[in-house]
Amino acid sequence: MSNTPDTAVRAYIDAHSAAFLDDLAEWLRIPSVSADPARAADVRRSAEWLAAKLTETGFPTVEIWETGTGSRSEETAAAAGTGTGAPAVFAEWPSGTPGAPTVLVYGHHDVQPAALEDGWRTDPFEPTTVDGKLYARGAADDKGQVFFHTLGVRAHLAATGRTAPAVNLKLLIEGEEESGSPHFPALIHDRAGRLACDAVIVSDTGMWSEDTPTVCTGMRGLTDCQIDLYGPDQDIHSGSFGGAVPNPATEAARLAAALHDGDRRVAVPGFYDGVVELTEAERELLAELPFDEKQWLRTAHSHGALGESGYSTLERVWARPTAEVNGIGGGYQGPGGKTIVPSTAQLKLSFRLVAGQDADAVQDSVRAWVAAALPEGIRHEITFWGTTRPCLTPLDHPALQSVVRAMGRAFGQKIRFTREGGSGPAADLQDVLGAPVLFLGISVPSDGWHAPNEKVELDLLMKGVETAAYLWGDLAENGRAGQ
Amino acid sequence: MSNTPDTAVRAYIDAHSAAFLDDLAEWLRIPSVSADPARAADVRRSAEWLAAKLTETGFPTVEIWETGTGSRSEETAAAAGTGTGAPAVFAEWPSGTPGAPTVLVYGHHDVQPAALEDGWRTDPFEPTTVDGKLYARGAADDKGQVFFHTLGVRAHLAATGRTAPAVNLKLLIEGEEESGSPHFPALIHDRAGRLACDAVIVSDTGMWSEDTPTVCTGMRGLTDCQIDLYGPDQDIHSGSFGGAVPNPATEAARLAAALHDGDRRVAVPGFYDGVVELTEAERELLAELPFDEKQWLRTAHSHGALGESGYSTLERVWARPTAEVNGIGGGYQGPGGKTIVPSTAQLKLSFRLVAGQDADAVQDSVRAWVAAALPEGIRHEITFWGTTRPCLTPLDHPALQSVVRAMGRAFGQKIRFTREGGSGPAADLQDVLGAPVLFLGISVPSDGWHAPNEKVELDLLMKGVETAAYLWGDLAENGRAGQ
Repeated sequence: MSNTPDTAVRAYIDAHSAAFLDDLAEWLRIPSVSADPARAADVRRSAEWLAAKLTETGFPTVEIWETGTGSRSEETAAAAGTGTGAPAVFAEWPSGTPGAPTVLVYGHHDVQPAALEDGWRTDPFEPTTVDGKLYARGAADDKGQVFFHTLGVRAHLAATGRTAPAVNLKLLIEGEEESGSPHFPALIHDRAGRLACDAVIVSDTGMWSEDTPTVCTGMRGLTDCQIDLYGPDQDIHSGSFGGAVPNPATEAARLAAALHDGDRRVAVPGFYDGVVELTEAERELLAELPFDEKQWLRTAHSHGALGESGYSTLERVWARPTAEVNGIGGGYQGPGGKTIVPSTAQLKLSFRLVAGQDADAVQDSVRAWVAAALPEGIRHEITFWGTTRPCLTPLDHPALQSVVRAMGRAFGQKIRFTREGGSGPAADLQDVLGAPVLFLGISVPSDGWHAPNEKVELDLLMKGVETAAYLWGDLAENGRAGQ
Repeated sequence: MSNTPDTAVRAYIDAHSAAFLDDLAEWLRIPSVSADPARAADVRRSAEWLAAKLTETGFPTVEIWETGTGSRSEETAAAAGTGTGAPAVFAEWPSGTPGAPTVLVYGHHDVQPAALEDGWRTDPFEPTTVDGKLYARGAADDKGQVFFHTLGVRAHLAATGRTAPAVNLKLLIEGEEESGSPHFPALIHDRAGRLACDAVIVSDTGMWSEDTPTVCTGMRGLTDCQIDLYGPDQDIHSGSFGGAVPNPATEAARLAAALHDGDRRVAVPGFYDGVVELTEAERELLAELPFDEKQWLRTAHSHGALGESGYSTLERVWARPTAEVNGIGGGYQGPGGKTIVPSTAQLKLSFRLVAGQDADAVQDSVRAWVAAALPEGIRHEITFWGTTRPCLTPLDHPALQSVVRAMGRAFGQKIRFTREGGSGPAADLQDVLGAPVLFLGISVPSDGWHAPNEKVELDLLMKGVETAAYLWGDLAENGRAGQ
């Protein structure tokens, strides 16, 4: 077990928390929205800000890594038309202890789009603290959870008297996670030597709740696309032509409606090919969690539960692949009515994937399904934004047990297990680096990821700092597989 | 037959066409978009401009009639939440000839929305003449076709030496036609005494083509609505919640998709109740028109034909009731992707009605169909913008024969018969005033009603002036039913 004195860690954190939060607020003010080409300079500024801060933290090596720059492994991304990517930040702090394990922390510094008119009570890029909650786009997803590692490693050093971490510590903080990490696989392929490690710690997930700290054991994958439909060359009069020509808004709707069958299963042929089904044992483990569907619906801001027949809500969001309409648009959307047949329509779809599904095969299935569904007179284009693979971590891995112990010390509670319905490039790291992926996240469902009024709970954020402060010592002692 | 000398009419028109077009351009510059509350002042300015011009034309009585002002017949409109309406213009010019018939000309001075970014090559509210075509929003629908009556009546007087028209001439030019004429039924009810007439001439329709002048014998009705769907109280993360809560964009799509069955028949239960089916004789008459589907598709700017099984394209747009998605919107529509479950979605639907259908019953059917289709957790609101009733004119009415003769003199060609797929408040006029409704329109399908780059063909516009100049004499001699 780790011998880091808990009181020393807590004292160090208390002494430095104000400066830590000031720094975090400064970072959150940078609107690093990777999905919006107009924000490319802000994404770069975010990377440069983080790099400077990591140097200040003590990392002897800090580098900004460009992506999508045409290296050999970038060819696939370039062929897919994704072009030049957003910069990632890499940092490295050797342990100095012979035989110390190497750990890579993964997170991202880009954020989802956000605008005041979406329903924010405060400017999404002007961090605001109310009742112990810090509101800002990226507060929880993911800047807050990346940033707790900076104070965490300082507390680890202060409490242990070390001048370098107990593990060889590496950080890789990418800038395109919210855009589906299009260049990330190529980046880690190209840099696999620099990234080599014994374990990956992903800090881009959440826990069950404020009262029930948990460790996540798997994430769903993701592939999302835009389908553009083209009908008449211009909007036309619905009286003169309506009812006799194909309408792209109707066809977009028919596609979106046909995504699910009457049992709300995804109806794209081939979509479920290879899906690793839940075992009865896993279903029982999930059923043991203190799940209150009414409370969950409040957190979801939803007034009803609806999903694939035969599965519980938790199973639906954690362990089942799904399809979602993220956006639909076509024709007149202004005030009042306008009796037209629209010229164009657009559909944005995302598909969450689980272990066993092949994202390329899913994309091919979607392409074939769309092409077969559209009538003559409707032209279409499909653009896939990117792919994130699903992943699952073995429950009995010793490094996972280290994470559970470090969290247990910080939270003073039994740590339970969950899965994550969201997506991150964890599986790519696992596959390319040949290392187990572990999840350390302190966000809670009410944090409003991808939604207006995203926030992080400040007390949980500081528990994240504390967990990080305990983790490196425990991993150095116990974290290697087979020990 | 009329004895107005054709050469005198043509000479008068030639001498005054330049000033006529200058005046029309001035009117077209007023963006009288009735669907947009922000344009209410422009709609009023348009009414005032027309009133002044009708006084200048010689009408001794010109009045601006307010609508939606709470008169007894307005109660229904007020209860429907339509509020205060846009002003109509009424003008009256007594014949002075004892026993002269009374004719009411109907048109509208409001226009569809238009914005440069919709695909206009020129400012929609800055009239531009290119190759004998006048481009502007309202050029054909309907300012151009209202305005030809001003020069038409002057040419009639000049050629006949009269100081007042051969008929008691009345004009009613409303300001809410493009918004479904919500206050029009109440208006004509309240003003039925002032509007009393022997025949109504509606100048808000088109002809078959430049080469095949036609008279229209019927119009489809219209009722249109907006359906707002409310799901989660805010946009939520599709990874954390997707697949387990109802998605309003998906539900909007399912509604729009369920509008039509596999045969593209409208699938709202009860929609076809009472529909007057085409007789075999009528189908043969329609089939005699020189219809070229490829040419029609070019005019429609469409790349395919699609509609109710078992009917030809002309039957679909003229004689069959239809349902159309005018607009759909929900979730993220900006650049790139955003993996959310949207909070809201919206659907704008319009229903074209034919003789025998009851618009109120159709609205009730739609309300019931929507309510039955939505899952728990999706709240909805339906707003119907208004209703326009369908109408049909008897083919053998003597006043219709007067219109055919006047057009024949202007065009020097045989005049054929069509129907109109679009909608206007003709049926209300017929019902309330107890007078036959005749259609005099010179617009052609390529004029782009409700579309970008709307235009009117200047030579056809002048044929409209000329037809109007011949019509009053012919109607005074031959136009009464039963003569």
